[in-house]
Amino acid sequence: MNETITSIAIIGAGNVATHLALGLSGKGFTIRQVFSRTEESARELATKLNCPYTSSLEQLTPDADLYIVSIKDSALESVIPHITRRNPQALFVHTAGSMSADVWKGYANRYGVIYPMQTFSKQRTIDFTDIPVFIEANNADDTDRLTRLMEQLSRHIYHVSSEQRRYLHIAAVFACNFTNHMYAVCEHLLKAHGLPFAAMLPLIDETARKVHLLSPTEAQTGPACRYDVNVIDRHLQMLNGEPELAKLYELISQNIHVYNKRKSKH
Amino acid sequence: MNETITSIAIIGAGNVATHLALGLSGKGFTIRQVFSRTEESARELATKLNCPYTSSLEQLTPDADLYIVSIKDSALESVIPHITRRNPQALFVHTAGSMSADVWKGYANRYGVIYPMQTFSKQRTIDFTDIPVFIEANNADDTDRLTRLMEQLSRHIYHVSSEQRRYLHIAAVFACNFTNHMYAVCEHLLKAHGLPFAAMLPLIDETARKVHLLSPTEAQTGPACRYDVNVIDRHLQMLNGEPELAKLYELISQNIHVYNKRKSKH
Repeated sequence: MNETITSIAIIGAGNVATHLALGLSGKGFTIRQVFSRTEESARELATKLNCPYTSSLEQLTPDADLYIVSIKDSALESVIPHITRRNPQALFVHTAGSMSADVWKGYANRYGVIYPMQTFSKQRTIDFTDIPVFIEANNADDTDRLTRLMEQLSRHIYHVSSEQRRYLHIAAVFACNFTNHMYAVCEHLLKAHGLPFAAMLPLIDETARKVHLLSPTEAQTGPACRYDVNVIDRHLQMLNGEPELAKLYELISQNIHVYNKRKSKH
Repeated sequence: MNETITSIAIIGAGNVATHLALGLSGKGFTIRQVFSRTEESARELATKLNCPYTSSLEQLTPDADLYIVSIKDSALESVIPHITRRNPQALFVHTAGSMSADVWKGYANRYGVIYPMQTFSKQRTIDFTDIPVFIEANNADDTDRLTRLMEQLSRHIYHVSSEQRRYLHIAAVFACNFTNHMYAVCEHLLKAHGLPFAAMLPLIDETARKVHLLSPTEAQTGPACRYDVNVIDRHLQMLNGEPELAKLYELISQNIHVYNKRKSKH
């Protein structure tokens, strides 16, 4: 049981599946097959990888060392039994930050999770080197195998429990998706007043750079941090025409104030 | 009336005042005096600048070409008359993103705003070169003077109206303060589960880098964007113990969903 992984089946053709498959293929691993529910997206990824593809789980290859399942969380549990029965002795992983490794339990003997924590867009090439990858497996040998596999792509491999990973995912939602939404609101407000979003990029960059050196709570500035009620009220009035934004502004400001008071106590 | 600015009085000793004064002093402008309400902070900044200081508005120098007032927004209006009467012919500016240039009206003949849009912390040295600076004055000569002054420090000078600047400021609150708060929540969640905030930095950096190339709405990913109710509900359950965070999570997710639907329509 100490063979390393050489051949891989990719289940899914979304952003994470695409970047993982391209990364591993580029390191010389054999991508045995791509499966996707729609033939078009299966073909699209398979063409990039120069490998076979299918849109039927019945046709899924029984001949891979590792099956990487990277599909919508809500579809995962229903698909698992159809995948594992194609090759009961293989190693199975999913890439879902918020799903336990135990979704495999009862369906596979060897299983785990590879969670590359990054925001993937198909349009953008990603250098995997700096992407943190969080690994878990139900046995030590497979933890080693997955670690060696992913060390080919990334310098930042962490071993975490499913419980830790759940919180990692929610933390990433705040640091990435919610942060990006703050950018989106910013762009929306600027556009509406004839101002270029590009003018905001130095501020966005500096805000990100700062937390490499200071804790975010230490780094906080602005009207909510000072709790400058004059500015906050004026801003809320300016957002009158967009009640959801006003609500968002108010709630985040209150929350910043709470964090700031907590900090002052320490 | 075509003399350039050579001598400057700095009113305020906070983050913006400090960085502006140090930047201008470094370019050879004479900082005539620093005023701050508390003697300690006036002395602290004056020491860095090697210039006189005062904590009494009665003692404010009558002998500067330009008075830069960088104090808490809520204090600005009450302080203005005490400043302008010291030198009625001088040029007066404040640095408050959300305050109109017209707060000077009736108190000064020549006035305006210099709004450097950046997140300043005293602890961090800032390279002004890439900081966008938004300028406004009540006459063309002073617009020129302020432009030439600030071109010494920054490559990104914009001329905006007070109305545009108000929205610029609120947009900056989203892009900087609120973004930073997303980082703070992220750090809080990680700490509580024995995970290092440093693991999140690549994701934070990539999230910022992405919007140099894609519009933030285009760049959005994650459960709220897909509106994956399973993940969202699980996350909300995980935040059960912190109702404010659950509320924040829900509101931002809903808002992302609205933006995403709006995008799909176009």
